Amino acid sequence: MRRFAVCGHEAPLDPDFSLDALTGAGRLDLLARCVTAGFLLSHGIREEVEVSLVLQDELTVRFDGRELKQLHPDERSAAALVKTALEGKRGAIGAMEANPSPGVYVGKRGLAETLNRADGTLVELHEDGDPAVNVTPPEDPVFVLSDHRDFADEEADLLAERADHRIRVGPERLHADHTVTVAHNWLDTVGYTTY
Amino acid sequence: MRRFAVCGHEAPLDPDFSLDALTGAGRLDLLARCVTAGFLLSHGIREEVEVSLVLQDELTVRFDGRELKQLHPDERSAAALVKTALEGKRGAIGAMEANPSPGVYVGKRGLAETLNRADGTLVELHEDGDPAVNVTPPEDPVFVLSDHRDFADEEADLLAERADHRIRVGPERLHADHTVTVAHNWLDTVGYTTY
Repeated sequence: MRRFAVCGHEAPLDPDFSLDALTGAGRLDLLARCVTAGFLLSHGIREEVEVSLVLQDELTVRFDGRELKQLHPDERSAAALVKTALEGKRGAIGAMEANPSPGVYVGKRGLAETLNRADGTLVELHEDGDPAVNVTPPEDPVFVLSDHRDFADEEADLLAERADHRIRVGPERLHADHTVTVAHNWLDTVGYTTY
Repeated sequence: MRRFAVCGHEAPLDPDFSLDALTGAGRLDLLARCVTAGFLLSHGIREEVEVSLVLQDELTVRFDGRELKQLHPDERSAAALVKTALEGKRGAIGAMEANPSPGVYVGKRGLAETLNRADGTLVELHEDGDPAVNVTPPEDPVFVLSDHRDFADEEADLLAERADHRIRVGPERLHADHTVTVAHNWLDTVGYTTY
């Protein structure tokens, strides 16, 4: 399974944002595109994918591709699923997530707890990392990346301690959603060897 | 310069669409994301890029990165520039484009005329093409790709006749905007050799 965890530092914790103004809602436009980049193929969905949006290191909205429905390619579609998840966050109690819509879970957990429950090879995606081509694409990667801001100190420390790899996908600094797309391509082609 | 031409088969020719319902506006959401994927880096813009949205093989909205302003990462931002361009299309007379906002041009031209004025190596992006890694990334590529539909017969014939390369970026069929991102990454890394 391919897992992506995206740290949304300014993302809303409550559903009182407008789907018509996602940029102003803590850059939910970017997080929404990370979700669609994570799941959508031209005419289908990547089922063996999980995307977790870690909101303010406090609340995590997790999408599971095996159960996900109603995800369309536009930003609003993914953002609407986040909104529904936040509307249902009261159902998340202790370590237990709520499941407000098919394949969408919300839980009271930050990055550390999100990574605790994600089995696989932990890969930090960062502009200062090693070139992707120097690393063998893992079978079950857990990619962690940041939104428009850099990782917070605690996140960076956590990743420095736990990550198996720290890689960059190219010489340019890309948006988080574009990085998700390139990471998929790196895996799809098994490190640019299989087309 | 890197050029991208995206064929929007159902895209609107008039500005009477809502920015709140881009998917229903001939998949303008997808075309908008092709524009942002073409230009935006994490904290800047790729200046040496041109993206042409070829609308119903009739009208082309062309974005020039050297002059472009007001392009934000969300879909609405790029779609708003398309709307403004379509509002100004009466200014396009014969072969002359109108320039309704900085770096945004609109002209009465289809794919053939758009390619006529784009110097460079013509590269068709298509799922049945050769693996990208088998081709040396060109200096001045002109990528042509299709929206959610396949190329129309006339477009396919034109590309079969004129394209220097026909490549695929991986084994999976990607959305057009994701393909733009991967094509940039292929060029950025000079065929996955330079990070």
